[in-house]
Amino acid sequence: MKPFNVFFDVLEGKMNLLGNKTVRRYNDIKGIFCEIDPKLEKENPVIYEVFEAPITEKEGDLMFLITVLYPGKVKNEFFMTKGHYHVIENTAEIYLGLRGNGLVLCQTREGDFEPIEISPNKVVYIPPYWAHRTVNTSSEPLVFFGVYPAHAGHDYKSVELEGFKKRVFFENGGIHIK
Amino acid sequence: MKPFNVFFDVLEGKMNLLGNKTVRRYNDIKGIFCEIDPKLEKENPVIYEVFEAPITEKEGDLMFLITVLYPGKVKNEFFMTKGHYHVIENTAEIYLGLRGNGLVLCQTREGDFEPIEISPNKVVYIPPYWAHRTVNTSSEPLVFFGVYPAHAGHDYKSVELEGFKKRVFFENGGIHIK
Repeated sequence: MKPFNVFFDVLEGKMNLLGNKTVRRYNDIKGIFCEIDPKLEKENPVIYEVFEAPITEKEGDLMFLITVLYPGKVKNEFFMTKGHYHVIENTAEIYLGLRGNGLVLCQTREGDFEPIEISPNKVVYIPPYWAHRTVNTSSEPLVFFGVYPAHAGHDYKSVELEGFKKRVFFENGGIHIK
Repeated sequence: MKPFNVFFDVLEGKMNLLGNKTVRRYNDIKGIFCEIDPKLEKENPVIYEVFEAPITEKEGDLMFLITVLYPGKVKNEFFMTKGHYHVIENTAEIYLGLRGNGLVLCQTREGDFEPIEISPNKVVYIPPYWAHRTVNTSSEPLVFFGVYPAHAGHDYKSVELEGFKKRVFFENGGIHIK
């Protein structure tokens, strides 16, 4: 592989040179929210999109991506990503906030839990062994740049089975993690 | 290590939670330029600063940093960084431009050479095995965010011995790589 560059649109969160694009609609992931919303089932909106660079999943390489997590709620629970551990668990991940505000929920298999704020010009460090899920608590798209070792892999299954210890709701005019 | 976040100032290029800070002044690195400037020897200005996050150099972790490379020239050669290979050569590096414009000069031990542009909202991908040096070709500080595997290490010695195949000059009102 040769060195290259990619331009991206910070507001739209899109790259001009794309590898993989993942689109998650409500019906693809509705099971992660604590309630079902029949109106959203019918409309089936895009909850988030992930634009990954054209990098192979080889040890030594780094994957980089832009995620656009749209604003919205399922009843009073904020839109969020599925969340995952890395398959190669001893691999970290770094997010840089570009637009909007939210929380990165982090937890370990031992039960530790940490909600970390993400916003423009804030870098979030997710150490090795921590699962991570992102929640958009703002009224605009939450856009962030991410980097992780290209061979890390995604373990969604463990999060589907365990869930996250806490959820994020809009209640009484405020953001509540519970 | 627990998850955490860090805020940084895109214009100034400074983080609010710092690990290592490296400051390179003209006299520390004057040998990398093709000519000596006695005026700069006397003034000894800061050529660049690197602000690294408080991450240990362990395999599995990722280091992140902000570099501020000031504008200026030694005679007609643009200010640049020392440049290095990684000690663990099978490790990539990613830069995200935040302010200013420049070039990331990349080369391999086999003699391949690629100059890659860096500017705001542009991501530069430096694959494993490529040495890299950054040049500020603009009239403002070149500020970029960088990520690399925390155990990669810096091999400056090879670049001191080999040099880079090409240099970047301001001549006849334009930027020349030669």
